[in-house]
Amino acid sequence: MAENVRNVLDAFDKIPAPWQPHRLVSVNDYEVKLAKIQGEFVWHAHHETDELFMVIDGELTIELRDGDVVLGPMDVFVVPKGVEHRPRAEGEVRAILIEPAGTVNTGDAGGELTAEVREFS
Amino acid sequence: MAENVRNVLDAFDKIPAPWQPHRLVSVNDYEVKLAKIQGEFVWHAHHETDELFMVIDGELTIELRDGDVVLGPMDVFVVPKGVEHRPRAEGEVRAILIEPAGTVNTGDAGGELTAEVREFS
Repeated sequence: MAENVRNVLDAFDKIPAPWQPHRLVSVNDYEVKLAKIQGEFVWHAHHETDELFMVIDGELTIELRDGDVVLGPMDVFVVPKGVEHRPRAEGEVRAILIEPAGTVNTGDAGGELTAEVREFS
Repeated sequence: MAENVRNVLDAFDKIPAPWQPHRLVSVNDYEVKLAKIQGEFVWHAHHETDELFMVIDGELTIELRDGDVVLGPMDVFVVPKGVEHRPRAEGEVRAILIEPAGTVNTGDAGGELTAEVREFS
């Protein structure tokens, strides 16, 4: 078997800090990633791909140039390809992200929050 | 905005019966689908794609030719491309599936449980 059963909640407990996406599983060339989010990210866009956010716990705001989207537990939102956005959370948010492998978290913005996707140990 | 915020739990409440996959959102050419599962499905394989199962509620058994995989709430399992499997659940399970658009639920088996992916109204 390529990968065994992974529990989302147990996996989140292994992530020490915000803005460190970890790969939970892959589906073909797509990755399901877990990330803790707290504070303000950078404005960026992904010009090659949509990006899915699914909130598990907490309240996540995704700022868009034409208004905010607010996500609570079990809410799903897809940022369309090319759309500028900035995730922001006052308290800690645990979120699932889905996008193609190789998608850089800071998209076209780069900068110090750019992070390699980590593997769970 | 291509699609607005969708709540997974609210969406499940709109699915009337098992074995009726509904598309929640798309991420490029992949679909995030919701399905209720109860009873025994058919043995099948998807020769072109992996298939992700994420259980929200209930206990889902995925029979494989070399043993069963049992998933509880927030457990994720990816059936690798080409691997024969049969989902089975005694009580009702609510599960998220992720795979490319156009993936047929019964894979190479066909039969009466073959279902078009439905749209939420």
